[in-house]
Amino acid sequence: MPSAYHSHVTRCPQPGILTLVPRWQPDAPVRLREAALALYAERGFDETTVEEIAERAGLTKRTFFRHFVDKREVLFGGAGNIEELLVAAVRAAPASARPLDAVSRGLDALAASLEEQGEPAARRFRIVRASPELWERQLIKFASMAEAVARALRSRGVGDPAAILAAESGITALRVASDRWVGDTTTQPLRHLVAAALAELRAVAAPETSPDRA
Amino acid sequence: MPSAYHSHVTRCPQPGILTLVPRWQPDAPVRLREAALALYAERGFDETTVEEIAERAGLTKRTFFRHFVDKREVLFGGAGNIEELLVAAVRAAPASARPLDAVSRGLDALAASLEEQGEPAARRFRIVRASPELWERQLIKFASMAEAVARALRSRGVGDPAAILAAESGITALRVASDRWVGDTTTQPLRHLVAAALAELRAVAAPETSPDRA
Repeated sequence: MPSAYHSHVTRCPQPGILTLVPRWQPDAPVRLREAALALYAERGFDETTVEEIAERAGLTKRTFFRHFVDKREVLFGGAGNIEELLVAAVRAAPASARPLDAVSRGLDALAASLEEQGEPAARRFRIVRASPELWERQLIKFASMAEAVARALRSRGVGDPAAILAAESGITALRVASDRWVGDTTTQPLRHLVAAALAELRAVAAPETSPDRA
Repeated sequence: MPSAYHSHVTRCPQPGILTLVPRWQPDAPVRLREAALALYAERGFDETTVEEIAERAGLTKRTFFRHFVDKREVLFGGAGNIEELLVAAVRAAPASARPLDAVSRGLDALAASLEEQGEPAARRFRIVRASPELWERQLIKFASMAEAVARALRSRGVGDPAAILAAESGITALRVASDRWVGDTTTQPLRHLVAAALAELRAVAAPETSPDRA
């Protein structure tokens, strides 16, 4: 968002001194996002207008549209970074790592980053989960993440269908873990919940005959 | 679509004989679907109008809208039946079947039914796959199928997260198999492809240590 840092160069009363007067608050996107999340949680996504978000942030509607296309983008704008982080960690996994283990490393990096963001990340997910329209968009994001992970696995030499199946399985574990994370019943960190969901998935996919009886 | 079978009761020239003269062709939805699939495949979904579909089917635009809300519904209208079939087969699996095995039975029933429909089912999937807009809708359908399967598993006494993980894994296998089914590289029946994808998924999720070394 370089536009937030555009400035006017003004001459100060003191001769010879150049001062940068920011034209817009450089933290405008952060403030707008916080205001939007608070309003979506209070009133619901459908009932919140861009005008109200701007007002709560102490900014104008025009400033809002300088940073976001619409009020949905406030919730989905950062998805690119998350996906890049995930993909980078999958690529960086040791060469010996099996497909689902490489995916597991990616998910761990992603979960760690979401945890660092703390409450806003959980609140965002809770808002998205509560609205069928937003949830549909989130499903599409998950599908795009799975495709990106599958590409990363292919670049590691994993063939199909293993690449797509490992990627989709990982994203399934992430979805299940995210649901539990924002639910009321757990205070566990997301990283633990993702690892637990992956372990459960492995258990569910284990062959009919248990190892003890094999 | 009971409206297709509404009839006028008319007196025939022969006295005393009642004849049913169908007001609309009872096969109108079938003809419209066939016409639509042919046009979508020839020109693309976006480039086809409802008018053209009706014309190709030898029917009116009004008849089209009696059976379908819009031109997307031609592709998605039958999804309910498919989901019911899937869910019924999951529920009917032997009590001893483990979650993913019950899902596997459901997928087998679904694949068998799609195969019976033959080329139209594959053509439908190919059209949906080629359009980002339609594919998004299909992703939402897949998510709804996974939720329905998870509910069926819970009714069998399967807890969470096993129910949702087994359901999602099954639908992932179905997606991968469908992609291969409509691709150019295989002539295998969908049932085989689904079974193969499930086996691959089990292999991908197998623990790091191979059984030989365990």
